[in-house]
Amino acid sequence: MKHFFNRRETIVSEALDGLLRTSGAGDLVRLDGYPEIKVILRADWDKSKVSVVSGGGAGHEPSHAGFVGKGMLTAAVSGEIFASPSVEAVLAAIRAVTGPAGCLLIVKNYTGDRLNFGLAAERARAEGFAVEMVIVADDIALPDINQPRGVAGTLFVHKIAGHLSETSHDLAEIAAVARAAAKDIVSLGMSLSSCSIPGQPHEDRFGADDGELGLGIHGEPGVERIAVQSADRLVAIMAERLSERLDPRAAYALLINNLGSVPPLEMSLIANAVLGSPFAKSVKMTIGPGPLMTALNMNGFSLSLIRLDAARQEALLAPVGPHAWMPAKPIAAPVVVPIVKAAEQPASHRASQDAGTRRLIVAVCERLISLEAALNGLDAKSGDGDTGSTVATGARSILERLDTLPLANPAATMGAMGDILSSSMGGSSGVLLSIFFTAAAQARSGGASLANALLSGLERMTFYGGASPGDRTMIDALEPALKALDANGLEEAARAARVGAEATSAMDKAKAGRSAYIGAKLQGVIDPGAHAVAEAFAAAVKIASA
Amino acid sequence: MKHFFNRRETIVSEALDGLLRTSGAGDLVRLDGYPEIKVILRADWDKSKVSVVSGGGAGHEPSHAGFVGKGMLTAAVSGEIFASPSVEAVLAAIRAVTGPAGCLLIVKNYTGDRLNFGLAAERARAEGFAVEMVIVADDIALPDINQPRGVAGTLFVHKIAGHLSETSHDLAEIAAVARAAAKDIVSLGMSLSSCSIPGQPHEDRFGADDGELGLGIHGEPGVERIAVQSADRLVAIMAERLSERLDPRAAYALLINNLGSVPPLEMSLIANAVLGSPFAKSVKMTIGPGPLMTALNMNGFSLSLIRLDAARQEALLAPVGPHAWMPAKPIAAPVVVPIVKAAEQPASHRASQDAGTRRLIVAVCERLISLEAALNGLDAKSGDGDTGSTVATGARSILERLDTLPLANPAATMGAMGDILSSSMGGSSGVLLSIFFTAAAQARSGGASLANALLSGLERMTFYGGASPGDRTMIDALEPALKALDANGLEEAARAARVGAEATSAMDKAKAGRSAYIGAKLQGVIDPGAHAVAEAFAAAVKIASA
Repeated sequence: MKHFFNRRETIVSEALDGLLRTSGAGDLVRLDGYPEIKVILRADWDKSKVSVVSGGGAGHEPSHAGFVGKGMLTAAVSGEIFASPSVEAVLAAIRAVTGPAGCLLIVKNYTGDRLNFGLAAERARAEGFAVEMVIVADDIALPDINQPRGVAGTLFVHKIAGHLSETSHDLAEIAAVARAAAKDIVSLGMSLSSCSIPGQPHEDRFGADDGELGLGIHGEPGVERIAVQSADRLVAIMAERLSERLDPRAAYALLINNLGSVPPLEMSLIANAVLGSPFAKSVKMTIGPGPLMTALNMNGFSLSLIRLDAARQEALLAPVGPHAWMPAKPIAAPVVVPIVKAAEQPASHRASQDAGTRRLIVAVCERLISLEAALNGLDAKSGDGDTGSTVATGARSILERLDTLPLANPAATMGAMGDILSSSMGGSSGVLLSIFFTAAAQARSGGASLANALLSGLERMTFYGGASPGDRTMIDALEPALKALDANGLEEAARAARVGAEATSAMDKAKAGRSAYIGAKLQGVIDPGAHAVAEAFAAAVKIASA
Repeated sequence: MKHFFNRRETIVSEALDGLLRTSGAGDLVRLDGYPEIKVILRADWDKSKVSVVSGGGAGHEPSHAGFVGKGMLTAAVSGEIFASPSVEAVLAAIRAVTGPAGCLLIVKNYTGDRLNFGLAAERARAEGFAVEMVIVADDIALPDINQPRGVAGTLFVHKIAGHLSETSHDLAEIAAVARAAAKDIVSLGMSLSSCSIPGQPHEDRFGADDGELGLGIHGEPGVERIAVQSADRLVAIMAERLSERLDPRAAYALLINNLGSVPPLEMSLIANAVLGSPFAKSVKMTIGPGPLMTALNMNGFSLSLIRLDAARQEALLAPVGPHAWMPAKPIAAPVVVPIVKAAEQPASHRASQDAGTRRLIVAVCERLISLEAALNGLDAKSGDGDTGSTVATGARSILERLDTLPLANPAATMGAMGDILSSSMGGSSGVLLSIFFTAAAQARSGGASLANALLSGLERMTFYGGASPGDRTMIDALEPALKALDANGLEEAARAARVGAEATSAMDKAKAGRSAYIGAKLQGVIDPGAHAVAEAFAAAVKIASA
């Protein structure tokens, strides 16, 4: 797998500096101890409160440094990727942020972390600091193990202890509450891939159709191979394991954690699967979905639950400084509101008759239908050869609905033709012509002349479509025609359309529309859309002079 | 690639429902139009303000529905993955949230979006709504193209227009400001992989050492193949391209966007590379790094900049409802604070003499050194055969520093031995013994008897180490010995240690320490750590009775 980094030795310190550079001026600082001592702390810390310190190996970002800030951690100690920080690093963190109120260390249950944080705690005590430690062992993947791992559920303890510290509770109380909370947390992970470490060779141990259930956050194998199957079924398997550990009468907060590389789209889908299942009856609030305790780029997620009581609920809901913490939200079924229907059409938009308009429409449409093969032939030289069919389809659909048109009302007739073309003609050209007629109708009903109304339609079609005169499109006939119509009447318009259409055969590069992809081999070929426009005007002239 | 989903047809609607379930009760709602009409809107919307509506294909989450809320979008219209929403869907959104103040549509520059949002805008106008549209075309990947793509820089326009709407500006002003902003935005993307679509076969077009520069957000190929190289150099290439488009005298906001599956660790490292480079002199504030406009699971990132003026800056800094928006932060070099040194040791901790203590330490250490080969041999049957060497190394390090120990002060001597062992002995056992002596010293200086102080040390070592009596560790000798020492003196302690050590040979499963992994084949083998403890006590008895 490929990664963004410079040198393996400095991945973690560079990332921590990146966090500092993007967290706001001076809110967070670091201790001057690189490379060994990688400690991020609150710049504004008041030692009259209990410091809350956590950390562990890197690779779990935003844990832990991302959670340093008001209402959560006072300091975070980072090791290298998946390696515990040293005793000296932890001790430096404790010394930096701990005053008379003391320090709570929150440690995930891994031997290295327990020992290094533990010895640091003992040294700090020897130096006169009051230090307590809570060890979080929330992973239920291995039900009989003596030492369950600490995973994403640890964040509940950060949040609760951080809130109690912020609200000036004392060390004994915070430690007791944190320990009790840690006992009431369960987590379970699932992944479709293992994670890879920047700068190290990686071999995915997963088969093409395999996932794993019960993973930790360091790439260690899961407890069970599990076939890739629907998200609903994968979630149901996890929910079943987790449910065994829940009190059915209790309410829980659920943290939905992206282990690394699951797209946000899929994380929301997973959240829906969890919260739409019977399992949700135990869940009162959610945190996430989002990347909270990751395992580098693992393509998996974890679910963590904590049993709620009033104090925990208050602590979890309290706002915090770090943006990486996602606010706890009460869960709710999706609220669905009815679609507002369009207002009913006025009487002037209902079917009506006008013999001249009818003749004009019929003549133009029949002309366009007659050109189907010719236009397809022109298009085959520059595009996919379907312009004639598309145009003919649109023209036929107008003819089919001729009796529904409000022919006595030219504006309403153009609006109705716009509606018909958008649904019947298909493709970009159907939408473009629909825009043309819809906007023209709007201008006409606002009092514009027919020519000016059609020019308004052209302006909107050009704006949305993005083509300009000279781009070898129907606009090269339509624009000169409409300008001439406004100035000199229909016959001049038809002449201008023909001149404009012919001119497209001298354009060597289509810049918009599908033929933009073809390049410079179109010299001598007339654009089929422009040709259709010119022919439509010619048909209109013929009828008008008949 | 493997994905979490149920059925292709419902991926987007399930994900949108997941968003609704986890966004808080009733803040967001959706229109009742699944499967075709996928519109998320603010439940609390006040139509006396200008509605701000955006959207496009799905696969870019949290864009766009994740940005619906106070101060940003009023509604978001989602298509299927990478496909524009229908005209009807856009029109339904406009109708649902637009009142007399009108509606601004924000559209990324793709033909499908332009046409479908465009026709919806024209239809809405025909229905009497005031509608304006701004098209964002911020991608500079293709410098000569007529129609640059709209990518992550679109979010600046969401934020600015959303702020102006929230603060009750009128449609003409918001549209003008949004259009001007869109002209002052540039973006560029880079990736090490293409993205894969759930339920569709995927072939990564990237070679093992290839990345691409100038990618869009739909898996379309980048403009250039680029060799995978250091993050600093990749960032420098992007910075160079972007710099060509910046006014060197102007200040910019920088949005650092995860295109999907870059681990947060690497995103922070990228942010550091960008902000630590000369390019940063143009940057006044940052948004991110984080997933803001993703392309499913693309392993890449994009940089977007907007030229700042006072109004844009105010708009970007204003707080918003949606958590997916990452607050703009002023940039700052990392602040580094000095490490607090440990307080200097008092005089009672400096080197001093006590002949009895010295003899005791020498005797125990020499005994342990003499056991090196025997302990290694025992360990080879259950572990990696190095217990003897580890113990001997620790003992030698104590002897080497004998003249530095405060021998006249037993508590301080134990503390000093703890310090020596943690740095010289190595491994878990070095840290465990260091915890043991450090905690014992602390208890002793607090007035505990030697036996009780050592029991305190054992209690801490057990807490941090996680082993219990019966787990086949040194604790099986140490615990009975220290209990006997407290009750009946040294000779009984030595006897109890020996009994305890021998008992480990009947334990069939090690539950802690390295031999936990070996399983049930240890019957008849004494634990080397427990044996060492028993021998240490035996040596102490011999000296005491000499």
